[in-house]
Amino acid sequence: MSKKNTYCVIMAGGIGSRFWPMSRSSFPKQFHDFLGTGRTLIQMTYERFLPICDKSNILVVTSAAYLDLVKEQLPDIPEKNILLEPSRKNTAPCLAYAMFKIVARNPNASMIVAPADHLVLKPDDFVKTIKIALKKADSGDYLVTLGIKPSRPDTGYGYIQFSEEFEGKDTQVRKVRTFTEKPELNIAEEFIQSGDFYWNSGIFIWTAEAVSHALEKHASELFSQFKEKAEAFDTSKETEAIQEIYNTCPNISIDYAIMEKAKNTYVVLSDFGWSDLGTWGSLYTHLPVNTSRNVEIGKRIYMEDSKGCLVKAHKNKLVAIQGLKDYIVVDTEDVLLICKMKDEQKIKQLVNRIKLNKGDKFL
Amino acid sequence: MSKKNTYCVIMAGGIGSRFWPMSRSSFPKQFHDFLGTGRTLIQMTYERFLPICDKSNILVVTSAAYLDLVKEQLPDIPEKNILLEPSRKNTAPCLAYAMFKIVARNPNASMIVAPADHLVLKPDDFVKTIKIALKKADSGDYLVTLGIKPSRPDTGYGYIQFSEEFEGKDTQVRKVRTFTEKPELNIAEEFIQSGDFYWNSGIFIWTAEAVSHALEKHASELFSQFKEKAEAFDTSKETEAIQEIYNTCPNISIDYAIMEKAKNTYVVLSDFGWSDLGTWGSLYTHLPVNTSRNVEIGKRIYMEDSKGCLVKAHKNKLVAIQGLKDYIVVDTEDVLLICKMKDEQKIKQLVNRIKLNKGDKFL
Repeated sequence: MSKKNTYCVIMAGGIGSRFWPMSRSSFPKQFHDFLGTGRTLIQMTYERFLPICDKSNILVVTSAAYLDLVKEQLPDIPEKNILLEPSRKNTAPCLAYAMFKIVARNPNASMIVAPADHLVLKPDDFVKTIKIALKKADSGDYLVTLGIKPSRPDTGYGYIQFSEEFEGKDTQVRKVRTFTEKPELNIAEEFIQSGDFYWNSGIFIWTAEAVSHALEKHASELFSQFKEKAEAFDTSKETEAIQEIYNTCPNISIDYAIMEKAKNTYVVLSDFGWSDLGTWGSLYTHLPVNTSRNVEIGKRIYMEDSKGCLVKAHKNKLVAIQGLKDYIVVDTEDVLLICKMKDEQKIKQLVNRIKLNKGDKFL
Repeated sequence: MSKKNTYCVIMAGGIGSRFWPMSRSSFPKQFHDFLGTGRTLIQMTYERFLPICDKSNILVVTSAAYLDLVKEQLPDIPEKNILLEPSRKNTAPCLAYAMFKIVARNPNASMIVAPADHLVLKPDDFVKTIKIALKKADSGDYLVTLGIKPSRPDTGYGYIQFSEEFEGKDTQVRKVRTFTEKPELNIAEEFIQSGDFYWNSGIFIWTAEAVSHALEKHASELFSQFKEKAEAFDTSKETEAIQEIYNTCPNISIDYAIMEKAKNTYVVLSDFGWSDLGTWGSLYTHLPVNTSRNVEIGKRIYMEDSKGCLVKAHKNKLVAIQGLKDYIVVDTEDVLLICKMKDEQKIKQLVNRIKLNKGDKFL
């Protein structure tokens, strides 16, 4: 495995609608400083990759609407490494695009692809895990994914069933037996109890060659649309080519397009403090609580008689809270959200009601 | 009673600390648009007086710190009608100042004096009541106050015990028997049960002559300090004179200085939707609630599964609340307060804790 041949692809085209009101289509989740550390999620994602590959080998796939945000937040990324998708077509076209772009530069490339908006609390363990995954990916025609040790029967995740046996020295590397997207609660509970299911992180590691084979075999229509225009990538004709491809290519996830069909899939059993930050509640479970079990994101938050709350202040705003238990409080410049932690799925209803009344301005 | 001889004095020097975080010493309660109507409390107070006296006869007493706010919010008030107190000395010096100023212009003046930060939900009834009070005040050497029909045994108010008999045609005008400041709860409960106690509104009606007599008789020290410099009022020497008086004059309320001592006090029994807006809870009880018993002050407030809350949004901010019962939520530009309605006295503790940590910036 050579650092020169290693490429990191950050997928940054999502809108994170479950993280309203901080995340909006005009300013999505990955561009926010959720933890109040001064670094946004995409900046933290970028920094996690610095020990893994050369700066010049880090690419971002996003939409034109977010180009300025990416340039502003990641000034070290050269513009030629920012890939603009003409429309949202889910992860398979996104990763095919990245692969063809990288192959045009280096046919021997290995790729790590990861969403921009995930949280990793133990970045050192993340790097160790990626290196194990890269070693496996570089050793043959394999599609490698990172599996996360599940802490609860979450029905919002995909589950990976893995083989009990391991092949090499790295006992964490296991052959994938099945993928199951978003199971019912009773199924998820069985998965957790059985002990041989991990969450699918959506972080993949493979050689360009392996993913190219997999696309050709399992998503031949998509593959041939890209293959026809392979010459255009990393040239002045790329923008036109990608526009044409996206006009007609299918909207399909990489899991559905290849992972669930392929037989050469492996999972690296991982535990690096991961969260996809799908909801405010998941953020709460991943951040350290104080003695009152509150998570306070902000420098001027004062709480009395309050427990089990996640409170996110806007910039330097002073927040004074008395007598609140198990709530989410998120204050942004133009929206304030107060919601029971256990009812956070109702945020969607509230947002829909607002949408009916006010149009999209706040959404 | 002649409109030409009628003067209205708006007392606008207070800081309304119990209405934190909206009310601050740098921007007190009276200058806020509490109801989201586009009019601040002082503007509504001013407008209530327009049917009662000529515009040129409306005066405001405030401190130099609020001069710009008064000019901005009441552009029709000529600067010569804005009286600036050099320091806070409670209501007796404030009203002595207003009386001497007015007498310098018109020795036959009648005065209505009222705090700038009270709420009146039925301004037409207010005007009718004031006219009855003026009639009484103009008919002799009387000190007239407005009594408010009490709705609960509030221990934060002063109580006026009135005579059961009435003298003239106006059955609401009663001789005052006693004044009681802030009674204990059991006493307040007895007052309410007895039926012959009303709340003291702090709104007074008297001729300049009557209040001059009363001050001379019951607050002779204060009176003589002003009397010595009577020639200076409404001249270029006024600022210097008032500075000297305030340097040494006592800090004393008009109730304690004259009302509780005088024998010629009358109360007009009133019911015009009054509140002194002492606390957020009192604002809640005076505003119309919706079907969920919520008071929503703001145009973009969305509440689900929520009851009994008072929610005040900042300007056009969107506020989305789910599952909140019996809370106060007040959002300002730089402070957000969330507090249980029944625990609003704890706001003070919270403010004290903040003061210890951050200094006075937000207070």
